[in-house]
Amino acid sequence: MRDADIIVRVSATADPAAVRTARLGLLLRSLRDGGPRSRGRLAEETGLTRSVATGLVDELAELGLVSCEDAGRRGAGRPGIQVRLVGGAVCGVGAEINVDHLAVVALDLSGTVIAEARRGIDGRSLPPDGVLDEVADLVADALAEARTAGSTVTGITVGVAGLVDATTQLVTLAPNLGWRDVDVAEEVRRRLATTASPVPPVRVANEATLAATAELEPTGSAHSDPADLADRADMVVLYGEVGLGGAIVSGGRVAPGRHGWAGEIGHLPVDPRGRLCGCGRTGCWETVVGLRALLEAATDPDDPVRDPALTLEERLATLVERARLADGRTLAALEEVGSWLGTGAAVLVNTLNPGTVVLSGYFAVLGEWLLPALEARLAADVLAPRAGGTRVAISAFGPTAAVRGGALVSLEPLLSDPTALAELHGGTR
Amino acid sequence: MRDADIIVRVSATADPAAVRTARLGLLLRSLRDGGPRSRGRLAEETGLTRSVATGLVDELAELGLVSCEDAGRRGAGRPGIQVRLVGGAVCGVGAEINVDHLAVVALDLSGTVIAEARRGIDGRSLPPDGVLDEVADLVADALAEARTAGSTVTGITVGVAGLVDATTQLVTLAPNLGWRDVDVAEEVRRRLATTASPVPPVRVANEATLAATAELEPTGSAHSDPADLADRADMVVLYGEVGLGGAIVSGGRVAPGRHGWAGEIGHLPVDPRGRLCGCGRTGCWETVVGLRALLEAATDPDDPVRDPALTLEERLATLVERARLADGRTLAALEEVGSWLGTGAAVLVNTLNPGTVVLSGYFAVLGEWLLPALEARLAADVLAPRAGGTRVAISAFGPTAAVRGGALVSLEPLLSDPTALAELHGGTR
Repeated sequence: MRDADIIVRVSATADPAAVRTARLGLLLRSLRDGGPRSRGRLAEETGLTRSVATGLVDELAELGLVSCEDAGRRGAGRPGIQVRLVGGAVCGVGAEINVDHLAVVALDLSGTVIAEARRGIDGRSLPPDGVLDEVADLVADALAEARTAGSTVTGITVGVAGLVDATTQLVTLAPNLGWRDVDVAEEVRRRLATTASPVPPVRVANEATLAATAELEPTGSAHSDPADLADRADMVVLYGEVGLGGAIVSGGRVAPGRHGWAGEIGHLPVDPRGRLCGCGRTGCWETVVGLRALLEAATDPDDPVRDPALTLEERLATLVERARLADGRTLAALEEVGSWLGTGAAVLVNTLNPGTVVLSGYFAVLGEWLLPALEARLAADVLAPRAGGTRVAISAFGPTAAVRGGALVSLEPLLSDPTALAELHGGTR
Repeated sequence: MRDADIIVRVSATADPAAVRTARLGLLLRSLRDGGPRSRGRLAEETGLTRSVATGLVDELAELGLVSCEDAGRRGAGRPGIQVRLVGGAVCGVGAEINVDHLAVVALDLSGTVIAEARRGIDGRSLPPDGVLDEVADLVADALAEARTAGSTVTGITVGVAGLVDATTQLVTLAPNLGWRDVDVAEEVRRRLATTASPVPPVRVANEATLAATAELEPTGSAHSDPADLADRADMVVLYGEVGLGGAIVSGGRVAPGRHGWAGEIGHLPVDPRGRLCGCGRTGCWETVVGLRALLEAATDPDDPVRDPALTLEERLATLVERARLADGRTLAALEEVGSWLGTGAAVLVNTLNPGTVVLSGYFAVLGEWLLPALEARLAADVLAPRAGGTRVAISAFGPTAAVRGGALVSLEPLLSDPTALAELHGGTR
């Protein structure tokens, strides 16, 4: 569908340079998503003439993005030139600022991890400047690793557990961090400028939006079943962290809403007699399903699993171990969170009737213990028969979904215009 | 956008008959939405050659759907043939089954009302058969009026305050009527067959979905402001009746969800300590914003406004009069309902960030008294600045939105294939 979109867009424009750029991007995507192929088949499958395709493939090869090798004369046929993505030539960087952890990943064009790191923090006591120092530090390390690997960084996208203004790119409000109007992209760019020059473009986005982007990538979860693919074209992504992020996917794309504020599901009121939320209201959904709520129900304040120095992965590994050992308190807390997840998910299923509800972030790691209570609640609270036919799926990416999505988003400009690589080559390689 | 879609679909098919049919529909829509025009301009604006357009216009004229008149020779130009829709040639019928009222409307192709009727009922005490007898009776009268007016009925669409199975077309569940698995379309068809022959196609749909369809029609509310149009492409429609129906509009179309069950917002839980809902749960949104809740707060049980024999319009006129006279109890009840409307609407705005929330059904009639409390609640409960930029609009159609939408939906098959009219001419004209 994406290819078809590009062809429509290309044929709608009369500007030859724009047509060439879009065709280069089309070939690159096709090689990324469909694997290596002969030049002839590539031309055929992208609807280009053989001579046009040959010229464009040569251009991509000059940019270092593809390699061509002569597969030799087979039978009576003409020599077959095999075209293959040089995935490692470029990479996108995704970073995440959450309340209790920071993370970064660099993914190359073929989806291979070039660099990866995470760090536990206490984002509630650390001031924004301190958090930004730490995340810039993680990103700088990833940039250095990419440089060592000979991979050009196309961009950096920082996911934040908060509202991002689509126009100003400011983090307008991050309730659990206590941030208001922080220019995260500019702050990270400024810090990176002291070590790297030039700094690749830095963007900021809502972390759940990025997690949904990761779910949609064809190089992501294996979606061999067409029904599964259709179920994912209309999807709700629940991204569990200290709080709860959400994203709505409609027609195969993350729906931003009219002014870019869609997906703020964490503050859906589910329990008016409940606890105070970071947003100042009472009984928001995230106060009963966020990792903070789970930890408070499953552990005592002095439990080592609450140590702020732990990375999220270490914390979750301990909880998984306790659940596997059938620890009563852990299982009861997971059932409670699963049930509340179902209460809120039922609102979304009644409203949107999505094909799939995806459990992402920390929910994915603990999914097998959350699912039974969640599905029971959905069956009870969704008016349509059989919970509206909506499936609940567990993300394959877990807590890395947002950084993966950030890396993928950072690669997008190159896929739209591969010639942009020439400019990037300046200083970051 | 709709025209462009048709052109894309047409050019994608190689079947000449399908191309002709789609072009006939394109011309008909263009004349309906853009008014009478010269044959030359019509050809130009629809992207057809003049000779093709002439042939198709002749065909539409033979079907009686358009008229052509020679506008005479102007200056040095060629004679201008003016083409004009014969709107009254056909009409669609929309009917509505609600808990306390039934309604029907027949709209011709240009949006003119050919027939209209409503009736107060007590749908909770009347068995389904009784309700269906009454609605079939109203529809039969509308069919007779259309026949007298010389208008061919293209179809009948019955809106119901309940869940409609997209596959089986059964009304799976109508909580406030107490219906389960009722084949409304077949029951109405069977009853009509005793008086009319052949009976035009009968369909069934959710009433809020139909109300949203009415909001989207270019012949509907005047949308001269492009920002208003963009705001309506992503829209939530709140259809107030005894309960509360909803529809989500995304990208200019009513979003059905993966299995057709989207829009069930009436049972969003807002008040766990609240009152029992018709669905068996407690504290559903509709228990505090439905007309039943308003009447219980604003009137005593023996108040004449609660008389089941009143039509909805009569009941609402009395409430409007009391509000205009600043009756304290009425105003307090409206403020309470407005505030609860805002509580639930905030959930939808946080989730979807639509351009517009439309107050339809009974909400539209009482909108000016509901709005202040609703907007105050939205401002408080939406996390994004300025309530996410979402506007609240009052529908121009009020309680007639669902029947109007039903009539428009009934005309759709003719707009997709005007040649289908030949078959319909058989018995209903």
